[in-house]
Amino acid sequence: MAKDVEVVVVEQGVYSAKDYQDPPPAPLIDLEELTKWSFYRALIAEFVATLLFLYITVLTVIGYMHQSQTSPDPCAGVGILGIAWAFGGMIFVLVYCTAGVSGGHINPAVTFGLFLARKVSLIRAVLYMVAQCLGAICGCGFVKAFQKAYYDRYGGGANKLNVGYSKGTGLGAEIIGTFVLVYTVFSATDPKRNARDSHVPVLAPLPIGFAVFMVHLATIPVTGTGINPARSFGAAVIYNNDKAWDDQWIFWVGPFIGAAIAAFYHQFILRAAAIKALGSFRSNP
Amino acid sequence: MAKDVEVVVVEQGVYSAKDYQDPPPAPLIDLEELTKWSFYRALIAEFVATLLFLYITVLTVIGYMHQSQTSPDPCAGVGILGIAWAFGGMIFVLVYCTAGVSGGHINPAVTFGLFLARKVSLIRAVLYMVAQCLGAICGCGFVKAFQKAYYDRYGGGANKLNVGYSKGTGLGAEIIGTFVLVYTVFSATDPKRNARDSHVPVLAPLPIGFAVFMVHLATIPVTGTGINPARSFGAAVIYNNDKAWDDQWIFWVGPFIGAAIAAFYHQFILRAAAIKALGSFRSNP
Amino acid sequence: MAKDVEVVVVEQGVYSAKDYQDPPPAPLIDLEELTKWSFYRALIAEFVATLLFLYITVLTVIGYMHQSQTSPDPCAGVGILGIAWAFGGMIFVLVYCTAGVSGGHINPAVTFGLFLARKVSLIRAVLYMVAQCLGAICGCGFVKAFQKAYYDRYGGGANKLNVGYSKGTGLGAEIIGTFVLVYTVFSATDPKRNARDSHVPVLAPLPIGFAVFMVHLATIPVTGTGINPARSFGAAVIYNNDKAWDDQWIFWVGPFIGAAIAAFYHQFILRAAAIKALGSFRSNP
Amino acid sequence: MAKDVEVVVVEQGVYSAKDYQDPPPAPLIDLEELTKWSFYRALIAEFVATLLFLYITVLTVIGYMHQSQTSPDPCAGVGILGIAWAFGGMIFVLVYCTAGVSGGHINPAVTFGLFLARKVSLIRAVLYMVAQCLGAICGCGFVKAFQKAYYDRYGGGANKLNVGYSKGTGLGAEIIGTFVLVYTVFSATDPKRNARDSHVPVLAPLPIGFAVFMVHLATIPVTGTGINPARSFGAAVIYNNDKAWDDQWIFWVGPFIGAAIAAFYHQFILRAAAIKALGSFRSNP
Repeated sequence: MAKDVEVVVVEQGVYSAKDYQDPPPAPLIDLEELTKWSFYRALIAEFVATLLFLYITVLTVIGYMHQSQTSPDPCAGVGILGIAWAFGGMIFVLVYCTAGVSGGHINPAVTFGLFLARKVSLIRAVLYMVAQCLGAICGCGFVKAFQKAYYDRYGGGANKLNVGYSKGTGLGAEIIGTFVLVYTVFSATDPKRNARDSHVPVLAPLPIGFAVFMVHLATIPVTGTGINPARSFGAAVIYNNDKAWDDQWIFWVGPFIGAAIAAFYHQFILRAAAIKALGSFRSNP
Repeated sequence: MAKDVEVVVVEQGVYSAKDYQDPPPAPLIDLEELTKWSFYRALIAEFVATLLFLYITVLTVIGYMHQSQTSPDPCAGVGILGIAWAFGGMIFVLVYCTAGVSGGHINPAVTFGLFLARKVSLIRAVLYMVAQCLGAICGCGFVKAFQKAYYDRYGGGANKLNVGYSKGTGLGAEIIGTFVLVYTVFSATDPKRNARDSHVPVLAPLPIGFAVFMVHLATIPVTGTGINPARSFGAAVIYNNDKAWDDQWIFWVGPFIGAAIAAFYHQFILRAAAIKALGSFRSNP
Repeated sequence: MAKDVEVVVVEQGVYSAKDYQDPPPAPLIDLEELTKWSFYRALIAEFVATLLFLYITVLTVIGYMHQSQTSPDPCAGVGILGIAWAFGGMIFVLVYCTAGVSGGHINPAVTFGLFLARKVSLIRAVLYMVAQCLGAICGCGFVKAFQKAYYDRYGGGANKLNVGYSKGTGLGAEIIGTFVLVYTVFSATDPKRNARDSHVPVLAPLPIGFAVFMVHLATIPVTGTGINPARSFGAAVIYNNDKAWDDQWIFWVGPFIGAAIAAFYHQFILRAAAIKALGSFRSNP
Repeated sequence: MAKDVEVVVVEQGVYSAKDYQDPPPAPLIDLEELTKWSFYRALIAEFVATLLFLYITVLTVIGYMHQSQTSPDPCAGVGILGIAWAFGGMIFVLVYCTAGVSGGHINPAVTFGLFLARKVSLIRAVLYMVAQCLGAICGCGFVKAFQKAYYDRYGGGANKLNVGYSKGTGLGAEIIGTFVLVYTVFSATDPKRNARDSHVPVLAPLPIGFAVFMVHLATIPVTGTGINPARSFGAAVIYNNDKAWDDQWIFWVGPFIGAAIAAFYHQFILRAAAIKALGSFRSNP
């Protein structure tokens, strides 16, 4: 049976493979990180990635709606399936690109989950969320600038409850959808897993992107799929529609609850933090 | 030529790469595993993963049917292709997430095949199947709670023989479809393969998910595609329709036969268990 | 600069990474391999894989055609995109599963290309092709048995020139399409590449499957896309239609020419076999 | 914390993993590379890859348009989603195949970005662009030869501004789209990343292909999506239509600006070239 000794902190460029020890929890407030260029670079990367995420995805939504309503061909446009691919595929690409710079959150719910698990400091979590929301606003702004005529007509890519669904259903859909995403993030970046297999960080973006793709397939008919408060907030700010603002709370409360449950499930059930403390832990799965 | 000496038991966290020896067969009844937290954690992981699998996939099915029948756009919704992606993609994501915790079965037919190959004990196999079926029931229950009005109208995502196909055709489709899946599982997790290349476990979820995607493309028109008794059982329990119960046996007998053939094919033909015993084995492929 | 010394013969279970030397060309006739169980196992694996390939893909074609012509919903069925995924995705899954057993050809054109490059012996090449053709016939036979009423009505998944395309166009499309596939196979399994990065063999099936997917997107409107003589032959035998037999030569001559050009391009241009012999070789790309 | 000592120059076949040092900038003019066969081989590989890229993608576009306008089934053909897959998937396959030979550019904008970052010499950059443009012309020529009747009727796969979009919008869409692509290329081939994880080069083609897929989903309705001047130029030469030539400048200026911004963003912000020179660099992300 393996021993619990060697430290693997892939994110910090140090490799000593085979077994693992949890890195110490991130401090709540780490003033030292404020003095480092890498911290500001991470904020810039989160801002740019969320901007590109909203730009590509909302442009896909508006372009699809325009094509499907003005073309004589009823199948013109990329379809709902293409929209789901746009959201999932962009997360795959952007997590891949930013993983080594900022950790590749691109989503306040992911940041919140990782903060609860003490993977990032409070100050980093808050500033990431600010950067993500600003990026999302700018990304939607570009789409509106490019698609002036169509942007408002086709709903601006904003999240809102679709006809026939109650607020409770929408909230539940956002909670479970975000759970799927944040659970995948935790599984893919688990240091125990990294210890066994050092390529996990390279491969992690693909299942994370697929998780986003899957949740969009399932819940686009219900809420349009948020599971990312920055995405919902940015679209609401630029679209600025009453219905979008009325439902906005669902797209913050739902994802944050889902992320909290995923953090709890991973840390206390799968990693067995509680039982581990009692010493009766580690056996073959 | 390589030597047949070193043990590689990736699932148990021990790594000594380069060559391989089959791990000893799992005991039929291993009471010691009942005393370990990791065993119960594995059951919880199977339960949660099957719940999420059914929730996302059945919600996709119901949402697609609702959109395509009520929208003025005849191509609204994700299409049958989107449904096939939902099943295959979720298996990719969930096998990736649970592989290190429970082995990532999420399917009683997979558990049955691995039990026949003596990879898991009888007691683990039975309790996994119970956890999978309970998870599937809960997942479908969430969809029904969220989609009250539409769930029953659109068939509840339940498997049944489509019009124009005989029971024999449905059974055959389930047998071959499950063979494709379980054959892929065996190939992807073969310890011989692990010995050669230690990243196989990380990459295995992708072809497994694709196998599920492929089978859905082919057999959705025939049976709606089961190849997973927990998925068929959970949907039947919540939908509770006579036709779904009448055909239910097909979705247990077919997958179990397919899994058994795959286990036989892998162990006796590809791994040549019989011939190996006679000593005339191992050469370059 | 690297040295040209160490041998890497991944297929034979021996690993000595870092640099490479071409393995010696396979003998034309190697009677010794006829005495090994692994040779017959490889033939069985090629037979089973080609059977599953034709079964899943032709069943997808027939099911799609049936749904799209009988459903009130014009977008029922998986679409041409779903059919292209079925062909490409199955090749990904099956190459992944059989790579370690038979090399994962599943296609006489691939076998022919690898034979020209002296990667397999003549006797292995011929028997692989026989196994592939028998597997393809059996796979189509299963579909016909399952879809009796629809199989003949919807063309049996057979390749033939579509209306409006000349024989020359069809032949050209098959040549270039097979070139794309066999070029990808050579690139992905190049021992020079393996020397640099030992995980290539594990990752190779994905680009190979994508190459098949891509060619289907482009040439389904022209010939239905063969690029695999066993696939075209098996469908023609079971469908047994005059038009399918009249065009059959295109689906043997085209792929074999394409595979030969790819083998020539890879061996003489990219690997520079000729120039290498003169000694003025190897520099940084 | 890791030290900044060991050299990792994966492209040159030398491996000394763990930490990294930037390779020295490529010289502007390197006459020595003109004397090496590997240089001409790289040009041939870029020519062939761009030829195959245009052949498959434009054939997909023409085939789709023909099917969707002549078939009784309004959803015949692979759809816009299939077209986006063709562009992204071919880039994945071709970058995978040519990465070890030419670096896998297949796009003058990528070559321009890598030249700005001093990864390739001026003379290599110029000759790559010439090879790419010639390859694109030949690829479109094959499609015209195969689809004589349909090629001109369905627009020849040429890029032009769609109705309702201004030149500024088209230029902006090309700039941001190319930024997404070239930013992904830089992130995936960053030597810092290679240092940490040696498999990155093998995995890099997938996110690069996905980036192309994503941008096509978003901007096909706007400009048909260029983000590759060779692709736009080749199609314009063979289609030879006034509108395509009038808009041609957009598909050179836009991608080159986007690539320049991506090179600046990666080198000066993410890699912090400026700050690094001042010595206050390197910390945990």
